Amino acid sequence: MEENKRIMNFRPEIKILDATLRDGGLVNNFYFTDEFVRDLYKANVKAGVDYMEFGYKASKEIFDVDKFGKWKFCNEDDIRDIVGDNVSDLKISIMADVGRCDYKNDIVNRSDSAVDMVRVATYINTMPAAIEMIEDANRKGYETTCNIMAISNANETDIDIALEMLGKSCVDGIYIVDSYGSIYPEQMRVIADKYVEVGEKYGKEIGIHAHNNQQLAFANTIESVSRGVNFLDATMSSMGRGAGNCAMELLLGFLKNPKYNLFPVLQFIEKHIVKLQQEGVVWGYDIPYLLTGRLNQHPSAAIDFTKEKRKDYSEFYQWLLERE
Amino acid sequence: MEENKRIMNFRPEIKILDATLRDGGLVNNFYFTDEFVRDLYKANVKAGVDYMEFGYKASKEIFDVDKFGKWKFCNEDDIRDIVGDNVSDLKISIMADVGRCDYKNDIVNRSDSAVDMVRVATYINTMPAAIEMIEDANRKGYETTCNIMAISNANETDIDIALEMLGKSCVDGIYIVDSYGSIYPEQMRVIADKYVEVGEKYGKEIGIHAHNNQQLAFANTIESVSRGVNFLDATMSSMGRGAGNCAMELLLGFLKNPKYNLFPVLQFIEKHIVKLQQEGVVWGYDIPYLLTGRLNQHPSAAIDFTKEKRKDYSEFYQWLLERE
Repeated sequence: MEENKRIMNFRPEIKILDATLRDGGLVNNFYFTDEFVRDLYKANVKAGVDYMEFGYKASKEIFDVDKFGKWKFCNEDDIRDIVGDNVSDLKISIMADVGRCDYKNDIVNRSDSAVDMVRVATYINTMPAAIEMIEDANRKGYETTCNIMAISNANETDIDIALEMLGKSCVDGIYIVDSYGSIYPEQMRVIADKYVEVGEKYGKEIGIHAHNNQQLAFANTIESVSRGVNFLDATMSSMGRGAGNCAMELLLGFLKNPKYNLFPVLQFIEKHIVKLQQEGVVWGYDIPYLLTGRLNQHPSAAIDFTKEKRKDYSEFYQWLLERE
Repeated sequence: MEENKRIMNFRPEIKILDATLRDGGLVNNFYFTDEFVRDLYKANVKAGVDYMEFGYKASKEIFDVDKFGKWKFCNEDDIRDIVGDNVSDLKISIMADVGRCDYKNDIVNRSDSAVDMVRVATYINTMPAAIEMIEDANRKGYETTCNIMAISNANETDIDIALEMLGKSCVDGIYIVDSYGSIYPEQMRVIADKYVEVGEKYGKEIGIHAHNNQQLAFANTIESVSRGVNFLDATMSSMGRGAGNCAMELLLGFLKNPKYNLFPVLQFIEKHIVKLQQEGVVWGYDIPYLLTGRLNQHPSAAIDFTKEKRKDYSEFYQWLLERE
C-alpha cells in the first residue's frame, strides 16, 4: 500500500533534464540541423521539461571546430539563435569536461549568457580541478552540478571523499553517473541512498544520468526517484552514446507531476528521431552493449563492433573476457 | 552492504524457463525450422537452463493445423523428434490455455510423454476451469503451474481469492504474469511479496513472466528474484509477443548461479535470432508498446500499428486515450 500510494503521487522537486543534444551528439558528432534543435527546444518547453542541455563547452584549442557540429562548442550566439530571450520556464544547461574546456575564457558571466546551469563532468581522480571549475561557474552566477563519471570503476572510499569535497563546495547538485550501464537497481538504491544522505547533510540536490546497456536506464532512474533523487537526465528515444540513456518518453509516462506532457515528445520523435534512425544514425540497446555493461567496461569496443555491423557476439564476448 | 552481499550470492532454488518457442511463436505463428528448435534445445542444455517450453497444447478442433506451425500443438512425436529421450537436466514444459485445449485427450500420461511440466494459462475469471486442468495434469503425473494472466486489470480481491484457491490446490507453482507490460518495479515488489507469502503458506513456488513494453521486463524479473520469486521466464533476445519478454542474455548475465553459462546463448542468437530479424520477423520494445503498456491496455493495437509500419505515435496515443 505504501508503495502504491507513492506511485499515485508526485514530488514537485523533481526536475527533468533533456540531454539529447549533448549525449546524443556523441553519436553523430553533434551534427544536428537547426530545425531539429529548434523543434527540440519547442518540444521541451511544451512538455514541461525543466532543463535542456545544448551540448558541451569544448575547448577549441583541443578540438577542431571543423570536425564537429556546433553543439560541441555551444557558442553563445548559436544558443541565442535558437532560444532568443528564452521566454519560457525551460532552463538551459551546458556540460564542461574537466581538462577539455577553456572555462576561464569561454564561459562568460551568466548575465551575458543564455545559459542557466553549468554541469561539470569529471572522473573521480580530477575532483580538485572539477571544483575549481565549479567555483568559477558559481562566481559567474550559474547554477552548477558535478557529474562524477564511471563510479562503477571507482573505489568506494574515493567516492565518499569526493562526495564530502562536493558537499563542502559551492556546487548546487551532484549527479550519479552510470557511465558503463553496469549498475543493477539493487545496487543503484544503495548508491542513491549514499548520495542523498550527503545531499541532505549539505543541502545539495542529487541527480542521475543512466545508460541503457542492460535495459536498466529507465528502471535505475525511477528507482533513484523513489530514494529521493530529484534531477533526472533523459533523452529523446534514449539517443546517447552506445546503448543510450533513459528515454524521455518512458520517464514522462511514469512521472505523475501534472506539469509534464508526453504528447509534444511523441510529436518530436515522429518528426525527427524516426528520420535520424532512417538515415542510419545508430544507438540504443544491443547485445554488445549488454556485454561491456555486464563486464563493467567502457562501451567503446561495443561501439566499434556495432559500427562494423558485426554479429559474432560470442567471439566478441570471449575477446572482452580475455582483456579483462 | 546487505544488498551488495545479496548480489554476490545466488539461490540454488532459482530455475530459468526458456519460453522462446511459446511466446516467440506468437510472433511468427509458430513457424520455426527444425534446425532452430534443435539448436535452441542444445543451447538451453549447454547454458544450464532448467526448463524449455516447446509451445502450446492447442485444440485442433478450435485451431486449424494448416494455419500454424507445429509448436502451437506440440505433438508428442514432434517433441520426441527434437529431444529423443532427453538425456539432459533440461526439463520440458508446454502451455495449455483454459478453453483452448482438449486436455483430457491431448495430454497423455507423463510416463508416455517427453513433457515434464504443464503450465496452465488462465484469466482470473476462469480459475475453476484452470484448477480442473491442473488437477488433470497432476493426476497424469506432471509438474504443474498456473499462470494468471493480465493481473494488472484484475481487482485485488479477486487476485487474493485466486491465490487462495491455488494455494489449496495441487498446483506446484504460481506465476505472476505482467501481460501488458504495465507494472513498475515498485508495484512488482508489492505483487511479488503477496504471491511469495501465499507460496510460503502453501508450499508453492512463485514464478514471473514479464513483458518489455516499458523496458522493464528484466528489471521486474530481477526485482522479483530479490523478493523470493524462483521461476523466471526468459526468451532469446526477448522474442515474444509485442515488446517481447525478459531477455535470456540479460538474465544469464545477472544470475550468479555457477551452473548458468551465457556463451551458448550468444552462439544461438548470432546463428538464429539475427537471421529471423533479418528476415523481417519483428518484436521488441518500441514506442507503441510503451503507450499500450503505460495505459494498461492489451498490446494488440500496438502490434497492428507496428505491422503497418506506422510512425504517427502522437495520433496513435490520442486514439488509445480516446478509447479508454
